[in-house]
Amino acid sequence: MKIELASSYGFCFGVKRAINIAQKYENSATMGPLIHNEDEINRLKKDFNVGLYSNLSDVKPEDTVIIRTHGIPKDELKELKKTTKKVINATCPFVTTPQNIVKNMSKEGYSIVIFGDINHPEVKGVMSYATDIEDVHIILCKEDLKNLKFKKSKIACVAQTTKKKETYLEIVNELILKNKEVRVFNTICDATFENQDAARDISIKADVMIVIGGKSSSNTKQLHSICLENCKDSYLIENEQDLEISWFKDKKFCGITAGASTPDWVIQKVINKIEGFKL
Amino acid sequence: MKIELASSYGFCFGVKRAINIAQKYENSATMGPLIHNEDEINRLKKDFNVGLYSNLSDVKPEDTVIIRTHGIPKDELKELKKTTKKVINATCPFVTTPQNIVKNMSKEGYSIVIFGDINHPEVKGVMSYATDIEDVHIILCKEDLKNLKFKKSKIACVAQTTKKKETYLEIVNELILKNKEVRVFNTICDATFENQDAARDISIKADVMIVIGGKSSSNTKQLHSICLENCKDSYLIENEQDLEISWFKDKKFCGITAGASTPDWVIQKVINKIEGFKL
Repeated sequence: MKIELASSYGFCFGVKRAINIAQKYENSATMGPLIHNEDEINRLKKDFNVGLYSNLSDVKPEDTVIIRTHGIPKDELKELKKTTKKVINATCPFVTTPQNIVKNMSKEGYSIVIFGDINHPEVKGVMSYATDIEDVHIILCKEDLKNLKFKKSKIACVAQTTKKKETYLEIVNELILKNKEVRVFNTICDATFENQDAARDISIKADVMIVIGGKSSSNTKQLHSICLENCKDSYLIENEQDLEISWFKDKKFCGITAGASTPDWVIQKVINKIEGFKL
Repeated sequence: MKIELASSYGFCFGVKRAINIAQKYENSATMGPLIHNEDEINRLKKDFNVGLYSNLSDVKPEDTVIIRTHGIPKDELKELKKTTKKVINATCPFVTTPQNIVKNMSKEGYSIVIFGDINHPEVKGVMSYATDIEDVHIILCKEDLKNLKFKKSKIACVAQTTKKKETYLEIVNELILKNKEVRVFNTICDATFENQDAARDISIKADVMIVIGGKSSSNTKQLHSICLENCKDSYLIENEQDLEISWFKDKKFCGITAGASTPDWVIQKVINKIEGFKL
């Protein structure tokens, strides 16, 4: 069986940057998981003693606290800065962009549409920057637009950085047909685009696809959904322990891709294990 | 054979308004054809002595000049106002909107994309309002985007009021994927939308479709193209003289629609003639 990696996969700019920051600040702690990958977070704890806070109330004034790549809500950041002066911002710059857009567009009198998961930390952070939170609408598909009531006739749209571009266009098209002005910001990050395009290309050729990434990682789930469109035997795994030998029986071409928070060392372990299978 | 009119057809708000203005100003002249319908222009000449100028240089200081529904370029309007003080603006308010958008967006530092016919008077007028004419790009389909070079990273889009919404979305989608900010103004007018939707509905049921309108009328050509998608025997005519009896042989359902510049009296003559055919 041939094993091939997608032409673009894994760590994006923002994740690489955040890990570099965390490695620089030994003995610090992150506010929420730095990235959506438990294995890498465990490595940072083991090798650099980077801890993890889930609650703002646990932070102590002497702590150095790193903001996660996904960002945090505006008020939490303010609160955090009151507790400790040592706040290091590892928010991905591509996430800071939609935060600023929402802030400015909301001020300029636009109703805000965010294409994203309401429970995702990035979206919680982005929406918090609106001046009128009641006129921010978080949706997952064009059908969600049906019962929305906008306060303004002008709409500004942003997307969670890791969402699927096709669905974003569907939403935007529906908005354009029904509103006089729609200001569309393409905030889906290029790395996401590239990984998505490469996943599409390789999954067309593969008869089994392995998508490696955290179970809560939005961009990994998108990659899995794209692979499933082209290759029904597409599996989402966190690491090599999730692999099952039966998936590869009688297969000729195994494609591999990985989410933006998946470190290379995890990917390598997966490849080693598949290569070791006696099929 | 059953004959049925589309549920929405013919005169739009802007055309009705322009004709009312012309009827009010007897012995005036229009700058270019007031609307794209020769029969109606002949009627205005005959009943109200409304003349027609093709060249600015022919206008005399004592003339009352009416600006056509499609508007005219900014500099021509300025020139015209120098020649005569009696300038009556019958530009459709839905055309004034994209003129103002192009003016403002160009000032705010956006590259401008206009979805429309470069030779159509409306488009010539709209584009003339840009402060940087070299950064205005007139296109007819998404393929036309390929070789464009924008001066700015932010794009503002408007559409000729009578264009097809599906093609506009195709263009806009391509722009969104390739640019960080696309400000989309839905300037296709509702009457156009309604006539297009109604033409689609009736042409699905019809086995012969008659589309009545001026040969230079953009919105009439759109209606014809929509009808052709659903009914191969769709004919574009200017008036009842263009009808051929052979079109109706063995047909069961004749659908009728008309462009936004087609007066009811022309439509009625067409229906009368079809009803009179001995099939």
